Amino acid sequence: MTKFKQITGNIASPKGFKADATHAELKFQKLDLGMILSEVPAAVAGVFTTNKVAAAPVILDKEVVAGGLAQAIITNSAIANAVTGEVGMNNAKKTQRLLADKFNLEPSHVAVCSTGVIGRQLPMDKIALGISKLSAENGHAAGFAQAILTTDLVEKEVAYQVELGGQTVTVAGACKGSGMIHPNMATMLAFITTDANIAQPLLQATLSEIIETTFNQITVDGDTSTNDTVLVLANGMAENAELVADSEDYLTFKSVLATVCQTMAKQIAADGEGATKLIEVTVAGAPDELTARMIAKHIVGSSLVKTAIFGADPNWGRVISAIGQVAPFEVPDIELTIQGDLVLLHSTAVDFDQAELSEKLKEKNVVIEADLNQGDKTGTAWGCDLTYKYVEINALYHS
Amino acid sequence: MTKFKQITGNIASPKGFKADATHAELKFQKLDLGMILSEVPAAVAGVFTTNKVAAAPVILDKEVVAGGLAQAIITNSAIANAVTGEVGMNNAKKTQRLLADKFNLEPSHVAVCSTGVIGRQLPMDKIALGISKLSAENGHAAGFAQAILTTDLVEKEVAYQVELGGQTVTVAGACKGSGMIHPNMATMLAFITTDANIAQPLLQATLSEIIETTFNQITVDGDTSTNDTVLVLANGMAENAELVADSEDYLTFKSVLATVCQTMAKQIAADGEGATKLIEVTVAGAPDELTARMIAKHIVGSSLVKTAIFGADPNWGRVISAIGQVAPFEVPDIELTIQGDLVLLHSTAVDFDQAELSEKLKEKNVVIEADLNQGDKTGTAWGCDLTYKYVEINALYHS
Repeated sequence: MTKFKQITGNIASPKGFKADATHAELKFQKLDLGMILSEVPAAVAGVFTTNKVAAAPVILDKEVVAGGLAQAIITNSAIANAVTGEVGMNNAKKTQRLLADKFNLEPSHVAVCSTGVIGRQLPMDKIALGISKLSAENGHAAGFAQAILTTDLVEKEVAYQVELGGQTVTVAGACKGSGMIHPNMATMLAFITTDANIAQPLLQATLSEIIETTFNQITVDGDTSTNDTVLVLANGMAENAELVADSEDYLTFKSVLATVCQTMAKQIAADGEGATKLIEVTVAGAPDELTARMIAKHIVGSSLVKTAIFGADPNWGRVISAIGQVAPFEVPDIELTIQGDLVLLHSTAVDFDQAELSEKLKEKNVVIEADLNQGDKTGTAWGCDLTYKYVEINALYHS
Repeated sequence: MTKFKQITGNIASPKGFKADATHAELKFQKLDLGMILSEVPAAVAGVFTTNKVAAAPVILDKEVVAGGLAQAIITNSAIANAVTGEVGMNNAKKTQRLLADKFNLEPSHVAVCSTGVIGRQLPMDKIALGISKLSAENGHAAGFAQAILTTDLVEKEVAYQVELGGQTVTVAGACKGSGMIHPNMATMLAFITTDANIAQPLLQATLSEIIETTFNQITVDGDTSTNDTVLVLANGMAENAELVADSEDYLTFKSVLATVCQTMAKQIAADGEGATKLIEVTVAGAPDELTARMIAKHIVGSSLVKTAIFGADPNWGRVISAIGQVAPFEVPDIELTIQGDLVLLHSTAVDFDQAELSEKLKEKNVVIEADLNQGDKTGTAWGCDLTYKYVEINALYHS
């Protein structure tokens, strides 16, 4: 398999992509409106929230993805445009048209995303003024990753390059937030751009598959937002031969895309509200991958496990109890390691150095591995610890 | 329907029941071993944790319930006797025999319960000494509710009386804990005694039905413990005519039992770890009761809703998002009230006095009512707020 490498870059690194960001006065002074623009219409794939209360832009973007092509994405933070009725839907469409008019695009080729407070209408005069300030040529590409943030503490972006059929293909991503995060703030947005040449149906199938083991395997507080969206734009400008399913080049591209998604997923988990640690849980020995992933996600989402990790407590009883709570079969032979230290064998406690393991749990990355010995399938999930700061962020902010 | 009334009493109030408690030195100085004893073998019904990692006493008690009769319950706190292998199972059986020997009972008529740290073995010398101190005659009945506590702050007991066929029937309950509570501490134990005359199969069916709308509708942190147990003993000493399914007397008895269970469920939710408020969520307008209860429980279990209530924030967006996350159908017409104030109509925000509602949210009891307008079924769930104290209790304690 061709080697791929991480590069320093941003969402505009792939050929033919530009990005910009501006302050549309939705937030007090931070960047709050971002745009991604491709020179040519790109194949677009997307996955969206399963929340039955889907925000207006989510409904609109599903139509864009159904059309198969997109040339731009416009995103605002601060207001989610969710639970906003017909007015909200019209505002999303108006945002789409304003950006299309500004850059001479087909309106149906413009995806619209929003993240922020639920139930408030977008101030369309400010959105219009913001869009008028966006530029394709002198864009502030690095600002895009900042403009999409809400309560996130750090910008999250990643870029990889790989040779496919003699051409350099770049895959880049920028994302925000995890958990319902701020009071009424809506969750996760992830954008991926690539200059790879790949047909839309294959791109969508690839994204849908990758999502299951990356973005769908992170949890901050178990809540699914009204606005969750992942969009991939592939504009083909790398001029590689079109990627064909199951070919070596396709599998390489898929690995790169999966790496980009997993990197962003972990960035989001590590920056969960109030988090001090990234927790990675791997469940092995399951009869199927779905069960392995489900159990791993349940462990990493348990408030009791999360608080124990915050307290650097090697509290394996909570992990075992979390497994037992959701395992669809008996688990009489669990092997459990925390930070590499064996704490349980054949579902029976083993002696370990409590103080030493507690020290290891003070590291920024915590790894929990459980082998159920009920099969050979594995699944991993990522999350963060539950801290005083989480309660503070979510209790003291007033809607 | 015959009126029933709450009385001041304890688990030994029904005719023919005695209870006692002692300090078996499992805890530093609090009561930690409790016993309920009936003069005659009683019909016994039980429901147990669905956690696949069931503790030894849970496995043993399932056998007792399968036998249909029980005359005593022996319960220790501090150690859960969970994930303790064969040694743990033998210790549970030995506890059963020790109590049977002391009071001349059939061992299979003794239920054994434990709650506390997972993975530690019971010190059988202390258990034996403790049992030797228990008395049927001069029992410390009021101490029973104290002896079963772990991190609970308050004792939880309730008693009701009702006339059935000219006889006074008493139903009493004592319970502990909710959520996985303390690090490695196991959850909910609830004991109900009654002198009603009712056959075991009907008692079990009644309990199984009532559980669904009471104990199964509370949540503190979403974790199911390895030791959850609810046991009902009905010794028939009230000498009422045997209760027959669907008769008026039976339905009255069922109402009393449901009231006892609901009262205890709410006591547990209100005393959730770190809780400052009891939250009651009712979902109406659902197509079926199961869905109504499921959505209500999801709302009251949402970390975001729980932190908002802690912060006295009328953050309806989080409630709506929680509904949308689990509703198995579209919800375009939600009506939502918080503390009686309408905040959402036809899924659209209405004007309300934010400051006034925030004041109302400072009360100890918070009521959230959502009408989905998708049917005529209703469900209620109870929980508590998520506070700094919850994080402290669960992070700072070391296993």
